[in-house]
Amino acid sequence: MKLVRYTANGITRLGKVVGTNVVDLSAIAPHGSMRQLLNDLPEIRGSIEAADEPALPLESVILEAPITDPQKFLAIGMNYQAHAQEAIAAGIPVPTSQLWFNKQVSCITGPASPIVYPAVSNALDYEAELAVVIGKRCRNVLPEDARSVIAGYTVANDVSARDWQHRTPTFTLGKSFDTHGPIGPWIITDDEILDPHALTLRLTVNGEERQSTLTGDMIYNIYDQIAYLSQVMTLEPGDILSTGTPSGVGAATNGLLKVGDVVRVEVSDVGVIENTIVSDG
Amino acid sequence: MKLVRYTANGITRLGKVVGTNVVDLSAIAPHGSMRQLLNDLPEIRGSIEAADEPALPLESVILEAPITDPQKFLAIGMNYQAHAQEAIAAGIPVPTSQLWFNKQVSCITGPASPIVYPAVSNALDYEAELAVVIGKRCRNVLPEDARSVIAGYTVANDVSARDWQHRTPTFTLGKSFDTHGPIGPWIITDDEILDPHALTLRLTVNGEERQSTLTGDMIYNIYDQIAYLSQVMTLEPGDILSTGTPSGVGAATNGLLKVGDVVRVEVSDVGVIENTIVSDG
Repeated sequence: MKLVRYTANGITRLGKVVGTNVVDLSAIAPHGSMRQLLNDLPEIRGSIEAADEPALPLESVILEAPITDPQKFLAIGMNYQAHAQEAIAAGIPVPTSQLWFNKQVSCITGPASPIVYPAVSNALDYEAELAVVIGKRCRNVLPEDARSVIAGYTVANDVSARDWQHRTPTFTLGKSFDTHGPIGPWIITDDEILDPHALTLRLTVNGEERQSTLTGDMIYNIYDQIAYLSQVMTLEPGDILSTGTPSGVGAATNGLLKVGDVVRVEVSDVGVIENTIVSDG
Repeated sequence: MKLVRYTANGITRLGKVVGTNVVDLSAIAPHGSMRQLLNDLPEIRGSIEAADEPALPLESVILEAPITDPQKFLAIGMNYQAHAQEAIAAGIPVPTSQLWFNKQVSCITGPASPIVYPAVSNALDYEAELAVVIGKRCRNVLPEDARSVIAGYTVANDVSARDWQHRTPTFTLGKSFDTHGPIGPWIITDDEILDPHALTLRLTVNGEERQSTLTGDMIYNIYDQIAYLSQVMTLEPGDILSTGTPSGVGAATNGLLKVGDVVRVEVSDVGVIENTIVSDG
């Protein structure tokens, strides 16, 4: 299933995409919270699968970020070998274990929403990522069990203000400007993905390819990520884990973003997000 | 006002502490979410102030973490000069701007709840902090206006697994083990604090003083913190900003925590939290 948040006639609701339509799930999930829906999914899955009306043409609605209220939005840095080399060249030390940081939940924006170039930054960059959405409250998950706690997948752009990112070693602020977390266009449930490590992840700026990889080239794969994180913290339904970006970021290729650029991130079998850089204010 | 979450007869509700009683605020805030209450506070403040029943003796209830569902839980590192020197001695570079990191929301625990010593760590430490709770959605706040977006204050212990903290420069995981974010015992509203930079912050382990400072010794004061953060991100009612710890942390004084230790953090005019270290599992 492709679970969405969509706006029609000024109202945002939960839905699922079926072919070229969006089926309204308000009757099943009137609270409107994707986090709540994912939490309840084991019980309401049958009802959601069976729902077929009311339906609207996909082209008549706006797809929003599929989830805006996760408890956590974590991302792993330097998780593709060639990108790690780029980072090392920029003076960031090689991590000897999984390097996690947060994007603030407040930076989440929609799959076609504008990305604001902050007036206070001069170094805006992109990072194509496959994001995992957790489906089950869990702790101390073994890698071999990790797939069972995944609700599904979405496409993410880990937009980064490099100048702010490098002011402190924690990355926190440079990764978290409002609108710097576009995700979407939906959460595709895990059962629809044969192997999350056999997907093609690709990013273009104004149609020109900047990043391209197989997700299987991750240094720490998705199951190892879930196992490692869940040694530390309880993961909750709706938590977003952005699984790393490959080589080709703007900072390493003289290709930082500018106002007017159109950035497109595509993950095969998952979906496409496309966002335009706009000026601040 | 001292706003609390409390449990009586197995049910957790919102309340306010008046003298030696807790007044139940369920009729005004039936949703049970402190985040929602803080969001609504400008409208419901009069009703909350007027509420005087039902009331229960404070000693008959359990005070819980006053807020468990903030959108953000941020903390600033090396924000007291003497502690910054400790960190530098431990090999952490001097920050040249505010050094923010996240504690995961999932690490929040109550003012008297146990702190779990993780089986996977060998270096558990404490950090006494004054935490600010935001009361108003805001962006680009000027320092001179920052006090107006503060809902109130609470006491925090930024419990840290130092071995995990230093595995990567981002701090993220070492700051975020479950139970490593005790806060409380309440959110005292801003109107009850004359000057948040004139408070005494003090931490003891088994009754022995380990940290003591005036909050006025912060390198970046609370208003500068809010101004800086809000240049980056929209702050929301309920967001927790933990404002830094003074010198005397265990890592710098051969005083790391062990199972059975009782850690008490006190902020004058705000409150006290006291947590015992317990073994994992």
